[in-house]
Amino acid sequence: MPKLRHPDRLGLHLRVVLEGGIAIGPGRAELLEAIRDAGSISAAGRSMAMSYKRAWDLVEEMNACFAAPVVSTSTGGVAGGGSRLTDTGTAVLAAYRRIEAAAADAAAAELCALSALLAPERTGAADAQP
Amino acid sequence: MPKLRHPDRLGLHLRVVLEGGIAIGPGRAELLEAIRDAGSISAAGRSMAMSYKRAWDLVEEMNACFAAPVVSTSTGGVAGGGSRLTDTGTAVLAAYRRIEAAAADAAAAELCALSALLAPERTGAADAQP
Repeated sequence: MPKLRHPDRLGLHLRVVLEGGIAIGPGRAELLEAIRDAGSISAAGRSMAMSYKRAWDLVEEMNACFAAPVVSTSTGGVAGGGSRLTDTGTAVLAAYRRIEAAAADAAAAELCALSALLAPERTGAADAQP
Repeated sequence: MPKLRHPDRLGLHLRVVLEGGIAIGPGRAELLEAIRDAGSISAAGRSMAMSYKRAWDLVEEMNACFAAPVVSTSTGGVAGGGSRLTDTGTAVLAAYRRIEAAAADAAAAELCALSALLAPERTGAADAQP
């Protein structure tokens, strides 16, 4: 099985590929959310067990892709600097989550059909048998 | 940007994670299709520039996950052996493709909204300007 960031999350894991090969997937969406919540790229990375460098690289890549940055960073000042989602970042994150929700809704019945094909020991159904 | 198998394919790249952490994504779906078309796991792997071992490993993993194998293999005989999709394999592949189509339909408008946020040079829009 491939290594999954969130092997415990059943259902659809969705990567959106836009013009120019730009991809937004579960990891980037989670990083944007963590930055929004933590107000800091390094704290967001830590909360995801992601290196500081990796978190910054992902943010810089996303910033370069969109017409406006998705994350803006200020240094120093009274609050000691920090990072926040821009309007573009908020819109990108919201669009990704809406796509995810719409896809999950559309696919719900098919997912059940697929699950029904699994070996019983995979689903825990074997335990339920007498 | 993450390495994508098909960086040229815009839109949704979808991984379905079922109970027990079993994942069906674009690569596995393509492998099942290639086996169906080629009648051979090794030929299917070659057509995807995938090693023989990798193709076999993926098939064995999928076979172990479902109540019945997704691919059956015969050795020798008049036709010299080969592999084919079973009814379960056909059903799994069809369900994945239906999920993909339903998700793409559901997400089409949102994808356009996301694309509109891209930098002009990413979309080719810059070229169109006078």
